[in-house]
Parts: sequence; C-alpha cells; structure tokens
Amino acid sequence: MSLPRIAIDAMGGDVGVRVMIEGAALARRRHERFQFLLVGDEARIVAALENHPNLRAASEVLHAPDVISGEDKPSQALRRAKTTSMGMAVDAVKQGAAGAAVSAGNTGALMAISKLALRTLPGIDRPALAALLPTLGANDLVMLDLGANTECDARNLVQFAIMGAAYSRIVTGLEAPRVRLLNIGTEEIKGTDALRVAANELKAASAELAMSFENFIEADKINRGEVDVVVTDGFSGNIALKAVEGTARFVADLLRRSFASSLRSKIGFLISRPATELLKHHLDPNNHNGAVFLGLNGVVVKSHGSANALGVANAVAVAARLLEENLTQRIATDLTRVGADNLRPTGRTAAKSRAAE
Amino acid sequence: MSLPRIAIDAMGGDVGVRVMIEGAALARRRHERFQFLLVGDEARIVAALENHPNLRAASEVLHAPDVISGEDKPSQALRRAKTTSMGMAVDAVKQGAAGAAVSAGNTGALMAISKLALRTLPGIDRPALAALLPTLGANDLVMLDLGANTECDARNLVQFAIMGAAYSRIVTGLEAPRVRLLNIGTEEIKGTDALRVAANELKAASAELAMSFENFIEADKINRGEVDVVVTDGFSGNIALKAVEGTARFVADLLRRSFASSLRSKIGFLISRPATELLKHHLDPNNHNGAVFLGLNGVVVKSHGSANALGVANAVAVAARLLEENLTQRIATDLTRVGADNLRPTGRTAAKSRAAE
Repeated sequence: MSLPRIAIDAMGGDVGVRVMIEGAALARRRHERFQFLLVGDEARIVAALENHPNLRAASEVLHAPDVISGEDKPSQALRRAKTTSMGMAVDAVKQGAAGAAVSAGNTGALMAISKLALRTLPGIDRPALAALLPTLGANDLVMLDLGANTECDARNLVQFAIMGAAYSRIVTGLEAPRVRLLNIGTEEIKGTDALRVAANELKAASAELAMSFENFIEADKINRGEVDVVVTDGFSGNIALKAVEGTARFVADLLRRSFASSLRSKIGFLISRPATELLKHHLDPNNHNGAVFLGLNGVVVKSHGSANALGVANAVAVAARLLEENLTQRIATDLTRVGADNLRPTGRTAAKSRAAE
Repeated sequence: MSLPRIAIDAMGGDVGVRVMIEGAALARRRHERFQFLLVGDEARIVAALENHPNLRAASEVLHAPDVISGEDKPSQALRRAKTTSMGMAVDAVKQGAAGAAVSAGNTGALMAISKLALRTLPGIDRPALAALLPTLGANDLVMLDLGANTECDARNLVQFAIMGAAYSRIVTGLEAPRVRLLNIGTEEIKGTDALRVAANELKAASAELAMSFENFIEADKINRGEVDVVVTDGFSGNIALKAVEGTARFVADLLRRSFASSLRSKIGFLISRPATELLKHHLDPNNHNGAVFLGLNGVVVKSHGSANALGVANAVAVAARLLEENLTQRIATDLTRVGADNLRPTGRTAAKSRAAE
C-alpha cells in the first residue's frame, strides 16, 4: 500500500504560492514515497510547478476559488471552508483523499476548520498546537499548547500531557519522556489551581502513563535538555514561545552589532564564521518549522506564515513523519489506556489563586 | 538635607552576607551621598564589613535574630516579620529610618511583608513587580507584573500601566513612554477579556495619561526598541521574563559550543573576544538586576537570589535612583490625575475567552 497523500494549502502564508510549491518540492525530494495534493488557485500552482517536474509527477492539483486571509476571524473562515484552499485541504483529510494537511495560513482559522471537519479524538476535549523546540540536550522538546486555547482547565492540561508524550516518543524514541507543567515556580503551592490539580491527576495516573512526570518547570529551564515535553495553556505557551523566538533573534542581532564594532572583531568574525553559521543554523526558525494540532482525527500541520521554502519543507516533513509513525493512532491508544475520558473536570486557569501572597 | 538611608537585608539570597555587603560597598562608591542600614546577623555583618571601611563609615548595623528562607510561605514569613532581617529592613522604611529596602530573599515573602507594612498607594489595589529589560533601542524597557500577582483583572492592568509609565519616565526621560499590553496577537479580538477591557480603559483615559498607549504587543517584539513599558499579569510576565533569561543563556551556551567546535573557530573567538565580551556584558543578568515593587508607600527592591556583588550593587543603585527621583510621589500624582480610583472593576484574566476559536 502506498502511503497517504499530503494535502498542501498552496495559498496560505505571507509568502505566496511559489514558496509553498518550492517547499513541497524540497520535501518531495526527501520523502520520495509521498504523493501530494496541491490545493489553491490552479493557474498559479501549475505555473509554479513548471520549475519542479519532480513534484509535478507526484502531485494532483485541486482548484480552490477562495483564500482565507490573515485578518479573517475563525467564524468567517468556517463559513467559507468549502471554497477556500485551507478548508479544501483539511476536507481532503476528512474525506480520506489525503492523510495530512499542511497550511501556512491564519492559525485561528486553521484550528476552527480542522476541529469542525476532523473532530477531536475520543477523550480529547480540545486540540492543542504543539511544536518542537531546540535544547542543549540530545533531543528537541515538545511544547504545547502554543495558542489554540487561551483558557485551559486541569483536564485539558492532562490531555495535552498525554498527547505531548505520544509526540515526544516519536521524536525522541524514549519509552517514558520527561513531562513537566510550565509554572512560575517549582514549589507545589505555585501557580494556578488548574496547574496544581493537573499535577495531582498526572501523578495519580503515572503508573498507566508512558511518561516520567515531575510537576513543574520554569520558563528559564525549558531548553537545558532536562525535559522532553512542556505542557501549558495556550496563552502562556504562546507568550513563552514568542519570548524564546524574540530573544534568540535579539541575541543574534546584538552579536552582529558586537562583531561590527571594531576591525579586529570583524576579522575574528570572518575567521570564526563556521561557528557563527552553525549557531545561525541552530537558531533559524525555519529549521524548527511545523507545529501540529494534536488531538484530531487526522494530522494538520501549521507552517509559519513567513517561513521560507526550507521551512515549508520542514513542516511537510513533520506531517510525513507523523503519518509514517501513526501519531493519531498512538495518541488514541494512550488515551484508552489511561481512561482519559474519566478524568475529573476541574477549575479553569481562570480561577488563579495568588500563590505569592 | 541628607538623602534617606537604604536598608539592606544582608541575609537574603542564595549567596550570603559577604556578597550582599560587597555589593553594598560597590554601590556606596557610586552613590557617596547615601547612608546604609545593614540588617541581619550582627556578628557576620561586622566581620564582612572589615574589608569595606568605606561602607562601614556610612552604615549602621541593625541586628536581626532570624532569617526568612526560600522555602518559607508568605504566611509564615508574615508571622516572623518582626524578628527577621527581611521584615526588619522593610519595617525601617515604614518607620522612616530608611527610604528604601533592598532584599535578595524569597519574592513571595518580600511582597507579603512589604504590602502589609507599607500598604498600597491610594488608587492601587495591588503592588506589581517591575524590572528593566535590555532592548535594541536606546533605552531599557520596564516590564510588569513579573510574578507578584498570578491573577489580574483589567483594573489591575490599568494601574500597572500607570505605574510602569511613571517608572519609565524616570529611566528614559520621555514625556510619554510607549505602553503596550502583552498579548498573543495584536488584533483587538485576541487574548483575555481583562486585556481587552484594560486596552479600552487606557485608550479612553489616554488624554489624561502621560503615556502613548497602543493596545497590544507580542512577546517576540518586546526587545526591538519599539516599546518602553510592557504590562501583563504576574503569571505571563514571569513566564516571559524567564523565557527571555533562559534563551539568552541558551544562545550564549550554543555560541560557546560553536566556537569550541574547531581550531579555526577557537582562533576566531580569541580574535573577536572584545565583541563576545561586549555581548556577555550586555546579557549578564547582573547588569539588569533590581526589580522594584511599584505601588507601595515606599521603595522596595528585589535583588536576584543568585546575583553577584555587581548585581547587588545594581539593585541598590535602582533603589537609590528611585529615591532621588521621587518615584513614589510621581506615581501618586499620576494616579490622582487620572482618577484611577474611579476605574471600573472588571472580569479577571480568569474569564479568558477563546479568541482563536
């Protein structure tokens, strides 16, 4: 049996059809067994394919007359799902015409469309957006939720932990990934009620869970290589992720300025270029592109709106890997094992208690 | 009239009396007009002062028999306020024996003790912890709250904005600092109810406020030099601050590794050392040490628990500057002008709405 196709929303993102198609072509070279369904304005896709006969040979083009813009609200996007490239790419997964969808479009719209079309797995109340982040250790870490759910209760956080661990096992090969809840301290009294309840639930269920759970981690420790899965609500996760991205760029900018500050430093920079190129490669967000909505009946990957062709190719590679490794089935199995459906519903992060007072 | 004294909790922090005293001595050299009240174990303070005759000449020692530990809960700390170095340093501010207190101890305990002893300014419901962060621009930015209040409502956020702007005017010299609320997107529908209400309140009051307010900023943009004050709840602020600190260290570690990866890179590193030293200096948290509790009847500065003597000296310098510039009086004046006491009380951040759905 050939592997299922990957549907590409060729219109999404700030960068346009050519970058999406070039990215898909790069991915095709790495994953020769995969076929592609390219969804969007047919004329523009066909034109872009002229430079990529290798991709063209492995692709079908599906014309979509409309596009979701960055300004569309999720509710507006939902109404136009059937005629837009994003909606039709996700629908292809629902219909079985593709095994996964990749889009660089509006995150809120992609979440809403995916949730409505694909529905959540049994035992999952809400999907979560998960991404891989670089660490000082041997493996990348999985962080979720990164913005799909502004508000989360303890039950959501427990489900995120189970889904994140399943993803991490695929990425790291570990039997029991190290899972932590993101908090503002590691003491048990710190943080919100939802965090404390989720920590207790995960500790109580740890015998059935294929993870090593140990309460909390603070945001300055996440990339030391001491944790494989960082679980948080979508508001805090989005803040943390963007703070990490912004600071990496900030430090790189400072470094550039420092190297330009004297002739001696400029010469040193030229000599040590392999080192700074290595760092640049390590920090380039394109090398970590491809966030996945976990918890759906199907694989949906979000590519960053400003990713280049290499970034798009990496997002497609994430989709290909999750298909090959049966992520959806593995999460479903884990959920059954722990009986996640029986987890007690509990207070929202809303009900934050002031632990510092 | 001589300037008021600065009370130093000589026992707080992971590093002990010697570092606190050495830091105070460094600060004394920079601020010759200031006097010090050194609070803690008298024998150890006197021993540490032997190497610092310059500080000894400007100091009085106040013996405190007890110490707040890092594990003490705020409630436990409050009960022992009268006999601990932290409690007695803050009490010195209350009694007028000092104008400001500096401690490297337990943040939650320092917040609880300071709030009870000094009370909040009229129009302020809760104090907020504010710190300066480096940017690519000409000035540092003020960020608050950094963890004093896990949960915040719109009214708290508005008060934080007013207090942060007052602090920023002292730091930047700007008449109308650029103030933004930290959010997961810049569109008006993004984030929590509390954020949206606070944004509307600040827009409505902008004629009376000495600030330039423009809605939201995302965490990856805070250090670009485009904003002077970043306002957020204590949970998100703590996550953002620690993510920034952790990532700066992460990138520095990667850079060190890259430079060590080949002989050529090592040589390049040696040649470009002035550049990397410049970067190291810029990123050293000791150079940005000293977070202040804004909104109290008095100045209380938190030094990082692991700060070195230079870091402690910087925290003391923050206290000295805020005394010289009459921060407390300026915040009180701003609050009167905007009539902050009349701001409508509104939904907690708890009542987060899922904007992405």
